[in-house]
Amino acid sequence: PDPKLLAKAQARLDCLTKPQGSLGRLEEVAARYVMMTGELKPAIPRGVVFTFAADHGVTKEGVSAYPREVTPQMVLNFLRGGAGVNVLARHAGVGVRVVDIGVDHDFGTLPDLISKKVMRGTRNLLVEPAMTRAEAEQSVLIGVELATQAAQEGIGLIGTGDMGIGNTTPSAAITAVMTGRPVSDVTGRGTGIDDAGHARKVAVIQQALDLHRPDRSDALDVLAKVGGLDIGGLVGLILGAAAARVPVVLDGFIAGAAALIAVGLQPRCREYLIASHRSVERGHAAIFDHLGVRPLLDLDLRLGEGTGACLGMSLVCAALKIYTEMATFGEAGVSEKA
Amino acid sequence: PDPKLLAKAQARLDCLTKPQGSLGRLEEVAARYVMMTGELKPAIPRGVVFTFAADHGVTKEGVSAYPREVTPQMVLNFLRGGAGVNVLARHAGVGVRVVDIGVDHDFGTLPDLISKKVMRGTRNLLVEPAMTRAEAEQSVLIGVELATQAAQEGIGLIGTGDMGIGNTTPSAAITAVMTGRPVSDVTGRGTGIDDAGHARKVAVIQQALDLHRPDRSDALDVLAKVGGLDIGGLVGLILGAAAARVPVVLDGFIAGAAALIAVGLQPRCREYLIASHRSVERGHAAIFDHLGVRPLLDLDLRLGEGTGACLGMSLVCAALKIYTEMATFGEAGVSEKA
Repeated sequence: PDPKLLAKAQARLDCLTKPQGSLGRLEEVAARYVMMTGELKPAIPRGVVFTFAADHGVTKEGVSAYPREVTPQMVLNFLRGGAGVNVLARHAGVGVRVVDIGVDHDFGTLPDLISKKVMRGTRNLLVEPAMTRAEAEQSVLIGVELATQAAQEGIGLIGTGDMGIGNTTPSAAITAVMTGRPVSDVTGRGTGIDDAGHARKVAVIQQALDLHRPDRSDALDVLAKVGGLDIGGLVGLILGAAAARVPVVLDGFIAGAAALIAVGLQPRCREYLIASHRSVERGHAAIFDHLGVRPLLDLDLRLGEGTGACLGMSLVCAALKIYTEMATFGEAGVSEKA
Repeated sequence: PDPKLLAKAQARLDCLTKPQGSLGRLEEVAARYVMMTGELKPAIPRGVVFTFAADHGVTKEGVSAYPREVTPQMVLNFLRGGAGVNVLARHAGVGVRVVDIGVDHDFGTLPDLISKKVMRGTRNLLVEPAMTRAEAEQSVLIGVELATQAAQEGIGLIGTGDMGIGNTTPSAAITAVMTGRPVSDVTGRGTGIDDAGHARKVAVIQQALDLHRPDRSDALDVLAKVGGLDIGGLVGLILGAAAARVPVVLDGFIAGAAALIAVGLQPRCREYLIASHRSVERGHAAIFDHLGVRPLLDLDLRLGEGTGACLGMSLVCAALKIYTEMATFGEAGVSEKA
C-alpha cells in the first residue's frame, strides 16, 4: 500500500461538510481502505464472511463447555441461515460462505457447503502435534484459494469467521507463542468453562508448549503443532486477501490468532487488517498490542462465527459512504472554519 | 417499564443457538428494547432521527471555530441529503427530519423543513438569560409534539440530532450545573477551537453561571438561562418518546446535555435512553456517569447532527434481529452446554 494515498484520501475527507477529523475512526477506516485497495474513488464493496469449520482433537481433554458434535450441528444451522452470523450478515448486507475444512462429520453433498476437508479434525495437541506441516500448509492454501477466487469475483471486503468447538485452546496456544506472553495471561473461558475447566485448559496448553516447543520464528511450525484447521484456513484467507489488495475484517480471538500466524509468515499482510471488535476472551488484547491494531467495536462479544466481523464490515461500508456520498463545502455552499 | 420483561427477553435470548450472553451488549440492548416497549415479539422498528437546528446568541463571544451562518447552510445541506447524518441515516435505513426550532435565518417555505421557529436564536447567555422560561417551555413542547406524532405514525425508534453553531457552550454550561462538576472539566473544543478560544469558552460559561445562578433542582430554569432552543427541542423529544414508550437513541454531547435536563424534569425517562457513542467532547463522560448509562460505540466522533445516533440505531436493529431471527437450540437441533 502507498502511504501517499492515505494523505490523498484524507484531503478529500477534509473537504467534506464537517469539521476536519470529526468523524474520527470512520475517516481513518475510509482512508485506510483507499490506501489498501489503491482506489481513490472506491465503490461500496460487496462483502463476504468466510466461516471455516473444523474440529479439534484437544476437546478430549475437557477444554470446552460444549460437546464436539456442536461443530457439525452449527454448520447445518449456518446453511439454514439460523445462526448469529447469518442474522448479522443479512443486517450488514454481506454474504456468508461456510467452509468445511476439517469437521469430524460426513456431511455428504450439501449444495451450499464448501467442502475442503483436510481431515476429520486435528490430533490431540496435548499428546502429539495437531497437524503435520503438510496438513497445516494444505489448510493455509485452501484459505488462499478461496480469497483469491473471491477477489476475482469482485468481492471487495472479506470477513473472517470460525466454528470449531475447542478452538480457543489452539488460539491461546498460538497467542502465547507468538506474543511471548505467559499462557495464563492469554487463556480465557471460551464458550463458558468454569474455574476448574479453565485451570485444566491452561495446564493443557502449557504442557503442549513444553512438549512441542513450537518455533515462533517459523509460524507454520506453530500452526502445525498447536493450531487448528479452521485457524489455518483463516491464515490463508488473510494472506490471499492481502495479496489481492482486498481488506480483511477480523472477527474475534480466533481470527486474531490466525492474524498472528499470517503476519508471522508475511509481515506486509498486517496493512490489510481491520479489527472489528475487542472480544471478551482474555488474550485478545495481547494480540492487538502485538499487531499494533485497534479494534472498532467493544460490545462484549464472544460468539465467533464472524458475528463481530459483520458489524465491522457494516462500519467499513458506512465509512466508505461518508467518503463517497457526502457533499463538499464547495458543493453545498457551506462556509469553512473561520 | 416492567423489569419482569427484561428477564423474559433474556430467557428467550438464552434459548438461541449461541453460548448464553455471548452476544454481549447486543443482548442487553434487545432485552432493554423489549422492556421499554412492552413488546415481547418486537418487529424491527422504523426509525427516525430528528435534527433540531437553532442559533445561539453566545456565538458573539467567539466560542466557536465556525461562523454563525453555517447553521442555516447546514440545514439546506441536510434537506439536499449531502450531510453526514443523511449518509449514515441511509446506511442505517432510518429517516431524517430536520426541524428549524430557532435558526437566525428566514428559510421561506421549504417542503421538507419542519418549521417550528420559536425565535431567531437565543440571547447571549453571557449578558442575559438565553431564553425566558416561556420560550424554553415552548421549545420543549415542540419536541414533545414531534415525538408524540412520530409514535402515532408507528415510529418505533427515535434518534436525536442537532445543528447549531455554538451549541457545545450551552451544553457544557448545562452539564456543569446538572452534574455539579467544574466548568473546566466539562468544556471541550467543540468543532475545533484553539487553546485561547477554549480558555475564553470556559470563562464565558463560568461568568454566565455566576451571573444567572441557575437552579439545578429546577431543570427548566437551567435550560432557559444557559441552554438553547435545539437542546430544548431534544429535551421534549426525549420526554415525548419516553411517554409513548418509544426508545430514544442519544447522539453525542448535546444530546447528553438534553438528557440531563429531561431526566431532571422526569427521572423515569432515563429508562428509555440508549447512548449511541462516547464523543471526543470533554464532558460527555461526566454525563454518562451522572445518568448511569454506557455508550455502545467509541469511534472518536464529534460531528453531531445525529451521525452517532444513526450508527447506534443500526446496532439496535441488529440486536432486535438477533432476538427475533436466530434459531433456538430446539429448532436447530443443536446440543446445549454439557
